[in-house]
Amino acid sequence: MKPTLPQGTRDFGAEVLRKRQYIINTIKQVFETYAFEALETPAMENLETLVGKYGEEGDKLMFKILNNGLERPEKHDKARADFEKILAGKSNSQLTERALRYDLTIPFARYVAMNIGQLTLPFRRYQIQPVWRADRPQRGRYREFYQCDADVVGSQNGRNEIELVQIYATVFSKLGLAADIKINNRKILAALAERCGGSEKLTDITIAIDKLDKIGLEKVKAELLERGLSPTQLVFIEQYLSITGPASQQLAELDQLIGQTQLGKNGIEELTYVLKNSNLSGTNCSLVPDFTLARGLNYYTGSIFEVKAVGAQMGSIGGGGRYDDLTGLFGVPNVPGVGISFGLDRIYDVLEELALFPESLNTSGHVLFFNLGIAEGSAAFGLMQQARQQGIACELYDEPAKFDKQFKYAERKRIGLAVIVGTKEMQEQTCIVKQLHNGMQHSMPQTRLIEHLHGLLAEQQ
Amino acid sequence: MKPTLPQGTRDFGAEVLRKRQYIINTIKQVFETYAFEALETPAMENLETLVGKYGEEGDKLMFKILNNGLERPEKHDKARADFEKILAGKSNSQLTERALRYDLTIPFARYVAMNIGQLTLPFRRYQIQPVWRADRPQRGRYREFYQCDADVVGSQNGRNEIELVQIYATVFSKLGLAADIKINNRKILAALAERCGGSEKLTDITIAIDKLDKIGLEKVKAELLERGLSPTQLVFIEQYLSITGPASQQLAELDQLIGQTQLGKNGIEELTYVLKNSNLSGTNCSLVPDFTLARGLNYYTGSIFEVKAVGAQMGSIGGGGRYDDLTGLFGVPNVPGVGISFGLDRIYDVLEELALFPESLNTSGHVLFFNLGIAEGSAAFGLMQQARQQGIACELYDEPAKFDKQFKYAERKRIGLAVIVGTKEMQEQTCIVKQLHNGMQHSMPQTRLIEHLHGLLAEQQ
Repeated sequence: MKPTLPQGTRDFGAEVLRKRQYIINTIKQVFETYAFEALETPAMENLETLVGKYGEEGDKLMFKILNNGLERPEKHDKARADFEKILAGKSNSQLTERALRYDLTIPFARYVAMNIGQLTLPFRRYQIQPVWRADRPQRGRYREFYQCDADVVGSQNGRNEIELVQIYATVFSKLGLAADIKINNRKILAALAERCGGSEKLTDITIAIDKLDKIGLEKVKAELLERGLSPTQLVFIEQYLSITGPASQQLAELDQLIGQTQLGKNGIEELTYVLKNSNLSGTNCSLVPDFTLARGLNYYTGSIFEVKAVGAQMGSIGGGGRYDDLTGLFGVPNVPGVGISFGLDRIYDVLEELALFPESLNTSGHVLFFNLGIAEGSAAFGLMQQARQQGIACELYDEPAKFDKQFKYAERKRIGLAVIVGTKEMQEQTCIVKQLHNGMQHSMPQTRLIEHLHGLLAEQQ
Repeated sequence: MKPTLPQGTRDFGAEVLRKRQYIINTIKQVFETYAFEALETPAMENLETLVGKYGEEGDKLMFKILNNGLERPEKHDKARADFEKILAGKSNSQLTERALRYDLTIPFARYVAMNIGQLTLPFRRYQIQPVWRADRPQRGRYREFYQCDADVVGSQNGRNEIELVQIYATVFSKLGLAADIKINNRKILAALAERCGGSEKLTDITIAIDKLDKIGLEKVKAELLERGLSPTQLVFIEQYLSITGPASQQLAELDQLIGQTQLGKNGIEELTYVLKNSNLSGTNCSLVPDFTLARGLNYYTGSIFEVKAVGAQMGSIGGGGRYDDLTGLFGVPNVPGVGISFGLDRIYDVLEELALFPESLNTSGHVLFFNLGIAEGSAAFGLMQQARQQGIACELYDEPAKFDKQFKYAERKRIGLAVIVGTKEMQEQTCIVKQLHNGMQHSMPQTRLIEHLHGLLAEQQ
């Protein structure tokens, strides 16, 4: 009888939302100072828009919406046949025309492709919306979670990478969170593949390397063997993966390994450009080359990023990269772009773990007017309405009740300020303002109340 | 090949989002001054949570999510059997465990039922989120649209109705939109049913009356006859429906008709209380009794509201009412409440139709730094990064280009301010700020730029 929530989904009450909003506002404000403009796309997309864009695994984890109107008898035969296709593991847009957004990048590419004639390029958009995946829920992984994306399309300028790195560093600094922004370049991986038997090995190599963090070197090597790479090639890849040391030394070693190919040269050049021109002084973040970084998705062609929080047990809290031809998937070729994403829910979990949320977010920010009788309550209500008109958030206790009951209510709702109008105050046209965290109280004429509350509320921030 | 959007859904670009956000912020801010606290629930709910709560029609229009993992052979037989149930028109939580949120009220009731032990009552929550319905799209009706709800549960105090009316009036006044807030009371309708053959006729009567606006009196009467009401009862209902005149006269006539029953007396009393105590002076809104107002949903038991924009061709832009036992649906009885809802998308359409959006929303609010060469662009970039650090939104034109190309870009993106750093300015450490709507420009030392931009941006608001 008691209702439940779908697995992997969550309700967010006021306290949690204040903290989530704090993160979102921080990200949004930084996106906006970098002149990214907002975009929102629908929760559902046509199945065809999404299917095949996230690999086989993605197709399986997509939430697909069953068509409505199947009860109409004339549709039954067709529906049964379509259902058999689904049972056979195929996506079927006849029976499930729509699916829930799986990320924000593909809907963005779809939007750009649909509106390319109207858009002024370069187009800088940000998007902060939930996405849905039927993944097995675990720490830091939910079935409904928010992505916060910024992308520039229509520009090949490397300055965009610099700005996006700068955005990462600015946001995490504002949040007080130290983070490592790892950077690599797909051209470097492509050069590695070239050196290991040809560019057709790129996907095999990236898929295997991408798992390094999770499964370790030995298992990556085993997978590479399985994927048809030779022991000699493995030695080469292992050499590549074991490059360490300060950035300049790493780059030199890398140059030794793959610098002789054109792709390798370009990749190293692009990487060096971003490393050199990003200015992270005064921030909480470092930009660190990491040649083991691969990123699972196939559409990346240049710089790739991934962000890890320092001092927290958590997977990546952000990632992104450059792509040459994302909208080509939708029939509009030659729109290069680059973008990054913040994982709101993981950032939340990390800030919580490291106790980095500002104390002020724990207070509700509104004022409780005590209700001390029918006439007193009425007087308090009138006073409250004046305060509300001046933008002060407040409520009147529901019914006349004893002091301690009303204090308890304020405490449970984390209300910081109370206004008390008793019989005496009503007669004298005064009121008492009480700060609940320290018990300090002041009596004042009712005409001075609003100004006084404004002052105290400003202090709370 | 060109991608499309699912029918009835929309992308929202920056200009539209500025306007939508303006409405949302207005509503949110008023909700918060009335001490409502935010809640967000997941986009999907268990099918059982939603099914049967919105009538037969609602069950049909719900977007249901097909379970994942059906390709596993051991699930096939069961899946086929379950699919037959769906073809037979039954909801089936075996094959579609989840469905998309159909409104915000039922998820709220589910939340309250699940968390009743932790909640401090009265609980005042607001919720601004999209909902999804597989309705036939038409003007003012989308398949994905936003509701903005505020509810108080755990209080029977009639002051809540007053506050909610006040919220409606405050929001619409802030938006500059004149609106009629229609009010009726379910007890009045119940008394009418009692007078027409018994309370079991209440649903028949409300369902029929609810259509009055759309189908007219004659068809309502026909439907009532069909639903088993006698011609004598019809005469009585027609009398009821034709009450007009000023509020006091209407109440008197109503009293004549149904005032002798206890229900009728209570209903009239409650209605009179709200009419008397709501203070809408100085607002754009009127509170008008409308006895033909019925509201389709069955859970209302007291005051009911519906809002119509004055001077626009549009269905209701808001509605709500009091319920005695919404959480009873989820096994938690005796939690009375009252709530209202704003229809964001319709309010948007009305403000657009009546040209009520503030002019400032048409400008993008960020600054374009011109790019006049490699060295000049570099200098502009450095200056821009300083401005961004002070919270000024800006971008550097993507590459060195001619003036007119950059002006055109600014115009197309509705950018209001440009900063120009040419060779001369670079040498002299100055810059030019140009207001693009009137062509006015000022030269100044680069050290004064930020202050100057802050001033101009403040003016734009």
